[in-house]
Amino acid sequence: MTRIIQDEQDFHRISMSEAVDLMRDALISVVSGTLVAPARHTLKVGNGGLTFTMGGESKNHQIAGFRVYDSVAPNATDHQHLTAVYDSVTGILKGLIVGRWVGDFRTGAIGGVAIDQLAHRDTKILSLIGTGKQARTQLQAALAVRTFEAIRVFSRDAQRCRNFADELSQVTGVAIDPVDSSREAVSEADIIITATTSSTPVILSEWLKPGAHINLIGPKFSDACELEPSIFQRASLLATDSPDQALAFGDQLIVESLTDVPPLQDLATLVASDYSRPVRDQGISVFVSLGLAATEVILANAILQKQ
Amino acid sequence: MTRIIQDEQDFHRISMSEAVDLMRDALISVVSGTLVAPARHTLKVGNGGLTFTMGGESKNHQIAGFRVYDSVAPNATDHQHLTAVYDSVTGILKGLIVGRWVGDFRTGAIGGVAIDQLAHRDTKILSLIGTGKQARTQLQAALAVRTFEAIRVFSRDAQRCRNFADELSQVTGVAIDPVDSSREAVSEADIIITATTSSTPVILSEWLKPGAHINLIGPKFSDACELEPSIFQRASLLATDSPDQALAFGDQLIVESLTDVPPLQDLATLVASDYSRPVRDQGISVFVSLGLAATEVILANAILQKQ
Repeated sequence: MTRIIQDEQDFHRISMSEAVDLMRDALISVVSGTLVAPARHTLKVGNGGLTFTMGGESKNHQIAGFRVYDSVAPNATDHQHLTAVYDSVTGILKGLIVGRWVGDFRTGAIGGVAIDQLAHRDTKILSLIGTGKQARTQLQAALAVRTFEAIRVFSRDAQRCRNFADELSQVTGVAIDPVDSSREAVSEADIIITATTSSTPVILSEWLKPGAHINLIGPKFSDACELEPSIFQRASLLATDSPDQALAFGDQLIVESLTDVPPLQDLATLVASDYSRPVRDQGISVFVSLGLAATEVILANAILQKQ
Repeated sequence: MTRIIQDEQDFHRISMSEAVDLMRDALISVVSGTLVAPARHTLKVGNGGLTFTMGGESKNHQIAGFRVYDSVAPNATDHQHLTAVYDSVTGILKGLIVGRWVGDFRTGAIGGVAIDQLAHRDTKILSLIGTGKQARTQLQAALAVRTFEAIRVFSRDAQRCRNFADELSQVTGVAIDPVDSSREAVSEADIIITATTSSTPVILSEWLKPGAHINLIGPKFSDACELEPSIFQRASLLATDSPDQALAFGDQLIVESLTDVPPLQDLATLVASDYSRPVRDQGISVFVSLGLAATEVILANAILQKQ
């Protein structure tokens, strides 16, 4: 029988620190050419379709596989994602994970790598905009790579914001302060995570401290973006985890549609060369999270091995 | 929890007759435009890759989904296929089936539709070349649509051939005779099923009775084909279940690489128009089985509903 996990309890056998390490290695594999991660493939059917991210890693893990999710209702929380892991040498189906957690945790872990590599060293204040699943894993990932003097969270829903702060303070063991406005959340922040579903800007450029780093997790398209466009124009560093996916999006992606912005760099190259930000660089750095294929498969493989 | 079936016992809740009916309706859906069945998509990784057949049906079933199998060792019997079924209206993952049986049974059932629609009415003798999983389901499908006075089976491995004949006689309740040569198997046959892995011809044109029908299940490529090329040139009717897949193969497909052969017709069109073969047509008819995407998803959906 193929090993199948669909109980969320079983996912948590892997820690965010382990996941961040796996993702850092995966990004280095991109540069060494052992990670295969093409752009997504979509089957159009019915009101939407199914989106496949496929990939593999041939050196450290010798696995191939995919994650698939529906694009009929991509933000529906009851919709399952399916991640499948194959042995890339023998072709054997090693296991399946049913549940959207794998993708979210992976995105969180890559966000952690991005913060670790792109943000300035002396970061004291973390700001979170959004209180959904992505905000949760991004927070965990930020805490896996940095320590903070203060963590501030904002959501339009004040009750939800307080609940998130209470719960995540408990889970992570660090104080998290719910605040009353997005501006209050970000104005002193060294690192900002935007993880909303907003199609209009939730933070403005003028609120940002010089040299701040942003993990842009939510909408990032020219017709729907949670960051004010001028933030990108003020940026000194833009990077993404999936240049292939950026290429597939083309002008739909806001950073590709704007003029006067720095080129979108490959996070993998920056990680592999152990890039570190010059202290004097007071521009904004933005990590444009697109989702590197194959990384969910690497994470799922690690979870399956913990069984 | 998502419904998951991986015990082969549970697959058999659907009969071959039911499966043939589902496949006939699926082919009619192609013509009415409610079945989406693009050519396969392959992820290349490691020694081979993963092959995805994706599709959906928007009227009768309102489902979408896919089957995926490895192309590292496509003929390895211990390798699992995975079939996933989604509700195409809500995007909910309805269920998963782990096991290669779904694809084989589907191929069998479409073979049954092909025999029913393309072979002459007065068929008395059925011949099977090959004794693998595909031969088994093709035989079941042939018996679901026709009755025969004699059934003959040949395999290069005489013991395996006797075992297959004994076992399938028991399962199906009809006499199956193992014979000593391919020629002996096919020389009087009205319907022939070739389901081997042979890359060289297992039957020759001169052995065939005028007007015979062949279900070509095994290799069908210009560089590896289980039928002698002249059989296609003697054919009066060639049809396939997946014109899109035929187009994707192009000249690799033997029928597309030969001259002086009839055009490859769409089985769906012949089924939807309830084609029936003129009695005077004494040419050979060949069904080139390529595998129509979405049909595995329809079959898996029916199996999941039986739970």
